[in-house]
Amino acid sequence: MSSAGYLPPFHLGIDLGGTNIKSGVVDDTGKPLSAVSLPTETEQGPQIGTDNLAIAARKAVESSGLAWDQIQSIGLGSPGTLDLPAGMLIHPVNFPNWSNFPIRDELATRLNRSVAFQNDANAAAYGEFWAGAGRGAHTVVLLTLGTGIGCGVVNEGQIIEGRHSHGAECGHIIIQMENGRLCSCGQHGHLEAYASATSLVKRAHEALEGGAVSSLGEHLAEGPLTSRIIDLAAEAGDPLAVKLMEETAHYLAVGAVNLMHSFDPDMVLFGGGMIAAGPNFLNMIREGIQKLAFPICAARTRVEYAELGGDAGFIGAAGYARMKFKTP
Amino acid sequence: MSSAGYLPPFHLGIDLGGTNIKSGVVDDTGKPLSAVSLPTETEQGPQIGTDNLAIAARKAVESSGLAWDQIQSIGLGSPGTLDLPAGMLIHPVNFPNWSNFPIRDELATRLNRSVAFQNDANAAAYGEFWAGAGRGAHTVVLLTLGTGIGCGVVNEGQIIEGRHSHGAECGHIIIQMENGRLCSCGQHGHLEAYASATSLVKRAHEALEGGAVSSLGEHLAEGPLTSRIIDLAAEAGDPLAVKLMEETAHYLAVGAVNLMHSFDPDMVLFGGGMIAAGPNFLNMIREGIQKLAFPICAARTRVEYAELGGDAGFIGAAGYARMKFKTP
Repeated sequence: MSSAGYLPPFHLGIDLGGTNIKSGVVDDTGKPLSAVSLPTETEQGPQIGTDNLAIAARKAVESSGLAWDQIQSIGLGSPGTLDLPAGMLIHPVNFPNWSNFPIRDELATRLNRSVAFQNDANAAAYGEFWAGAGRGAHTVVLLTLGTGIGCGVVNEGQIIEGRHSHGAECGHIIIQMENGRLCSCGQHGHLEAYASATSLVKRAHEALEGGAVSSLGEHLAEGPLTSRIIDLAAEAGDPLAVKLMEETAHYLAVGAVNLMHSFDPDMVLFGGGMIAAGPNFLNMIREGIQKLAFPICAARTRVEYAELGGDAGFIGAAGYARMKFKTP
Repeated sequence: MSSAGYLPPFHLGIDLGGTNIKSGVVDDTGKPLSAVSLPTETEQGPQIGTDNLAIAARKAVESSGLAWDQIQSIGLGSPGTLDLPAGMLIHPVNFPNWSNFPIRDELATRLNRSVAFQNDANAAAYGEFWAGAGRGAHTVVLLTLGTGIGCGVVNEGQIIEGRHSHGAECGHIIIQMENGRLCSCGQHGHLEAYASATSLVKRAHEALEGGAVSSLGEHLAEGPLTSRIIDLAAEAGDPLAVKLMEETAHYLAVGAVNLMHSFDPDMVLFGGGMIAAGPNFLNMIREGIQKLAFPICAARTRVEYAELGGDAGFIGAAGYARMKFKTP
C-alpha cells in the first residue's frame, strides 16, 4: 500500500501533571522516539502553564529529530475534572487556579495545530492498550496505584469517556458502604480510600498507633513511611507489613472484580508506583480475583502489570490523537 | 428517501424466560404490533423449548397481521450464562438441563432465518434505550429489580457485551466487602444481596424474627411476604416497612453511583417488579444518588423508572437485531 513519497506518520503526546509535563514523539506503533520532562509551574497559572506545554511539545519534536510536518496528530492528557467535548479544564483538584480554562484550544493556538484532548488516566489506559501490556486485547481496564487510584477503560478500542467526562472514575466506586474509610474526595468507602499508596501508609500508621509491633516502627523514627518501605518490609517478612500488603491486594481484587462484572474486559492491568512491589503482590491480587469473580471471568481474564510506566500518559495521548484524527 | 414499492421494515423479538416465552413484532421505532406469551416448558429440555420459541415467533408474526417477508430482523434474548459470539446457552441457572445448547442456530434453523442473540437484561436495556424511557439518551444503564438484580448497559448506542459475555453483570458488584450479605450466586456483599426483592423480603423476616413490631407480622400470619406487601405497608406508614424501603433505596443508590462512576451514563433506569413502589421510592433513590455521586454526575444524570415493563425484553431483542442486521 506504500507509494512513492510515502512517509510513516508520527504522533506527539503531552501529559500534563501537577508537578511535571511529559511529552514525547512516538511512531505509528506507539514506540517513543523522544521523551522530555519539564516543570509545569502550576502556581504561575494556566497561561504560563500552557506556554510550558507548548515548550515541552517543541522540545519533544526537536529531540525526535523529525520535522513538524511529519507529526500527524497531537494529543494532550490532563487530570480532571474536565469537559472533554469542550476541551476545558473544569476543576483540576491539585491546581485549582487553572479552573474553567479552555486548555485544548489554548494549546492548539500555540502549536497552530489541532489537539486531541483526553483525561490522563484514560490516556494511560489507551497507551497500554495500544502499545503496552494490553497490546492485542480488545477491552482493557487499567488501575493506576499511586497517591490516589486512577482508572481508564478502553472498550472494544474506544475510551469510555462518559457523557459528562466522568467515565472510568473507578477509584471512586464504593466497595464498603457501611463504616467505609474516608476518601480523599470526601466520600466514604471508595476503592481509593482502601487501596491507594496513601491509604496503605495510613493503615500502617493506624496499626502502629494501635500498638502493632513491626520493623515499620523503626522506619517511622527515621522519616515518613512510604508504600515502598512497607512493601520492602513485607518482602523481608515483617508480619504487619505482610498483613497490610495482603489486605491491599484483597481490596484491589474487590475493585477489579467489580470492573470485571461491569465491563468484562479481556485484561485488567495495574500500573503506578505501587507495582514496584513486584510479582508477589500481583499474584496476591490474582488469587483474590480467583476467589471473587464469576468462574468464566476468573478463568479467562488476564491480570497483569502495566508496562509503560510514566510514559503511558504521553504515549496514550499520542495514540488517542492518532485514532481521533485518523483519515479513514 | 422513499421510493415506489418501499415498505417500512418490521422486527421480531423473542424473550426466553424460565417460565414463559414472550414474543412480539415491532415497527421500525420499536412500537409493538403484537405480543404473545406461552409457556417455555423448560423441563421438556432445549429441543422442545426451542420448538416453543419458534411457535411463539410464528404466533407473534401471525398476530401482527404482517407477512414473514416484511420481518427484516429477528432477535432472541436469553438468560445467562451465555456465549454470545457462539450463540450458546452455557449454563442457564434456572434450567440447567439446557446447558451447552446452541440455541441461536437451533432457532435459526426452525425459522429458516438469521437470529441475533443477546443476554436478556442487555436486550431489555437496549429496548428502553431504543423505544422506552431512554429514548434520546446516548448511554443508558438499566437495573431490573426482581427476584435478582439484572443489569444492562448501552454505551453510545452499543451494548456492553463484554469479552466473555459477562458485560454488565452489575447485580454482582461488591458494595460491602466486609461481612457482606450472602448473594444467590454464592458470593457475599453483592448489590443483589442487598437490594433485590428477595433481599428485601429476607431483611423483613430478619427484622421480625429480631422482634421488630410491625404490621408485616400480621401479613406473615396470612401468607408469605412479598416486596409489594412491604412497599404497601411503607406507604401506610409502618415504621419497619418504611425503614426497609429506605435502606433498599440507599443500596440502590450505592449501586447506581458505582455504575455512574464507571460508565458515566446520561441516564440510569430502574425496572422490574419493584418499581410498583412508585414515585416515592424513586425519589428516595435519587436523594441517595445526590449524596453519593460526584457533583457533575449528580447534577446531570437523569434517574428514572423504565417504561416498557415486561415487553422490554422482546422489544430490545428486536431492536438489537435491527441494529445488528442493518444494511449500511
